Amino acid sequence: MFAEIITIGDELLIGQVVDTNSAWIGCELNNIGIEVLRITSVRDRGNEIIESIDNAMKRADIVLMTGGLGPTKDDITKQVLCDYFQTKLVFDDSVYKNIKRILGNRVPMNKLNKSQAMVPENCIVINNRVGTASVSWFERNGKILVSMPGVPQEMKTVMGEEILPRFKTRFIADIILHKTFLVKNYSESVLAETLEQWEESLPEFVKLAYLPSLGIVRLRLTARGHCQTTLQKELDEQSLALNKILKENLINDDASLEEQIGKKLRSLNLTLSIAESCTGGNASARITTIPGCSEYFKGAIIAYHNNIKIALLDVPKAVLDVYGAVSEETVIAMAKGAMKRLNTDCSISISGIAGPDGGTETKPVGTIWIASAYKNEIRTMKQEINRGRGMNIERAVNNAFLSLLEML
Amino acid sequence: MFAEIITIGDELLIGQVVDTNSAWIGCELNNIGIEVLRITSVRDRGNEIIESIDNAMKRADIVLMTGGLGPTKDDITKQVLCDYFQTKLVFDDSVYKNIKRILGNRVPMNKLNKSQAMVPENCIVINNRVGTASVSWFERNGKILVSMPGVPQEMKTVMGEEILPRFKTRFIADIILHKTFLVKNYSESVLAETLEQWEESLPEFVKLAYLPSLGIVRLRLTARGHCQTTLQKELDEQSLALNKILKENLINDDASLEEQIGKKLRSLNLTLSIAESCTGGNASARITTIPGCSEYFKGAIIAYHNNIKIALLDVPKAVLDVYGAVSEETVIAMAKGAMKRLNTDCSISISGIAGPDGGTETKPVGTIWIASAYKNEIRTMKQEINRGRGMNIERAVNNAFLSLLEML
Repeated sequence: MFAEIITIGDELLIGQVVDTNSAWIGCELNNIGIEVLRITSVRDRGNEIIESIDNAMKRADIVLMTGGLGPTKDDITKQVLCDYFQTKLVFDDSVYKNIKRILGNRVPMNKLNKSQAMVPENCIVINNRVGTASVSWFERNGKILVSMPGVPQEMKTVMGEEILPRFKTRFIADIILHKTFLVKNYSESVLAETLEQWEESLPEFVKLAYLPSLGIVRLRLTARGHCQTTLQKELDEQSLALNKILKENLINDDASLEEQIGKKLRSLNLTLSIAESCTGGNASARITTIPGCSEYFKGAIIAYHNNIKIALLDVPKAVLDVYGAVSEETVIAMAKGAMKRLNTDCSISISGIAGPDGGTETKPVGTIWIASAYKNEIRTMKQEINRGRGMNIERAVNNAFLSLLEML
Repeated sequence: MFAEIITIGDELLIGQVVDTNSAWIGCELNNIGIEVLRITSVRDRGNEIIESIDNAMKRADIVLMTGGLGPTKDDITKQVLCDYFQTKLVFDDSVYKNIKRILGNRVPMNKLNKSQAMVPENCIVINNRVGTASVSWFERNGKILVSMPGVPQEMKTVMGEEILPRFKTRFIADIILHKTFLVKNYSESVLAETLEQWEESLPEFVKLAYLPSLGIVRLRLTARGHCQTTLQKELDEQSLALNKILKENLINDDASLEEQIGKKLRSLNLTLSIAESCTGGNASARITTIPGCSEYFKGAIIAYHNNIKIALLDVPKAVLDVYGAVSEETVIAMAKGAMKRLNTDCSISISGIAGPDGGTETKPVGTIWIASAYKNEIRTMKQEINRGRGMNIERAVNNAFLSLLEML
């Protein structure tokens, strides 16, 4: 079973908006054994949208579209679908009622909102619980096309509640199992060489993929077939083999580092605090992406200015004067200060020069010190790669999380 | 001048990685008057890559590709390009030297890295200053195809330093000018209705686009033509017209809210601190995306746990007991506490229930209180929409930034 995704909107092509819908849809379809062949982003032009639909319908069994369903002038998807499927727009009372419900008292019903109650005839119309744009589901010659709103939260809601359940019951698809690992201390090419022989010995129905991240390589084994038990057994055996090759450098968990930290802290009944300087809140923001993190995460101090490091993290002024803010001594003091001031069992601290400016001869841009502390133990590391402000920050947070995980 | 973008890699189609390259490329090309017609993401399969190239070369003058240039097995782009352009891979000494330089002492040169020194014959090879994968630039029948690495930082570096300058000198393209505005207090549909008459009166060469965000609508006017002066004059006049219609709801700045805050604080010589609870570091992380923010941002306290609100932000225990952590009284105390403890002129504070759990009858999920303080003035607002944890947090940060901007 093959699918294609078409995302519509000038804003995608001029780069004002990053298309995050496609990756989310791809991931969800993959989980139920539907493979995405291609993702196409097109402009708000009728003929270009029609050409993309036509090509996708030739190659794939399912075409999922997002965007172009809003109330404004450039939202032309419904009319284009009518042209393509030779039908017309008709008024739908249940969609109209849904629009009224969604707008509530906040927004008056105007003619543009009313136009959203016009839907293509000869298709299944599915209401959108969290927005005013409805979903159109077409079936022609054994193929399915579904047009969904482009607002990510609305797309995810209708897809999760309405579209995926229908796909699941309709299609007896292949079973696809994934197992993902994190690998520390290896570059992608050295890892590929180390694993070459093992990779070649994998059976035909198991595939290995490399997904490089910052300071870490993500490996994914995918098994595909009809028998869940066989697939699972093979993945388990290959995981064992991989563990033998990579030993302590392999993390047998496909969860994100922040999820792993959450699980670990929860199971050990420990609390965490963070002291950040150059990462400016990114470590805390990632920890708090996990719902329920308030059970183990007490808070953080973003000590951008040195005075804050002194006043709120008890970093001795002498340490800053002698070693500087970007030093092993400072991150040790910050980690201790965070544990004490926020009264936690563990902490992470980060201080460095994220760039683009602020580097010196001895401490060039990209120099970032990291400490992780657990009770009386403190580990430190120095990161020394400059790949630009954003990537330096992301890598530092990854390294701090890895370092804490190792200690726990 | 039209371009298409092709991004290559299974990881894009199974949703393990979001394609951020295309938006960045789209934005850069747009700035120099090259319009992106289509973005296609394809799997690591030779025939599918070739089909996409072939179609793109028919429609566009320029095709930009990213991905599939790494050292591992699934990296097949170079071979595919050789097949398509009927040429072969040859060893390139300058690329080999560059690979050695990049790997330095950190990573040993192995046969996989060495294979990256094999490049297509009959194309211009451009070295990658920040990575091991080189760029191939093909010209055939007046059309250009450029294959670049998929690692975003590497792509951005080669594109910015090598590819865009060549495009700029080669093509006398249309001039495209944009002006972007932020609009407060309007939903997209009410705004569209308000602006309908004005929009219809716009000259042919000026286009209006709506880019909805959370708690704010972004409007973009685009003027396209050959004469910079005419275009600029028209944009200026239409901006004036828009200001007359939307008055104080229009923000005449196309910079992000965090950039605008930075500019404002810098020009007024003021300092900022932040006290965050449910947003967990996201407000600070956004403030610190701006290089040089250390001039005005002193730091933040992420007070996830109530004890931290008391200990580090001086929120009276009685306030928490009587009104709760999610209350106007608490965010006022947090904002005051941040200003005092971090010794700043202004502050922002946020406390709420981001979800998915933690809601009550009187304070459902999505209830978020926000305060902004400037010297003796404090403004508060209550956000009451639940669109899921991530969107609730993003909207709260937007609202806090807007509120601070209004005060300054």
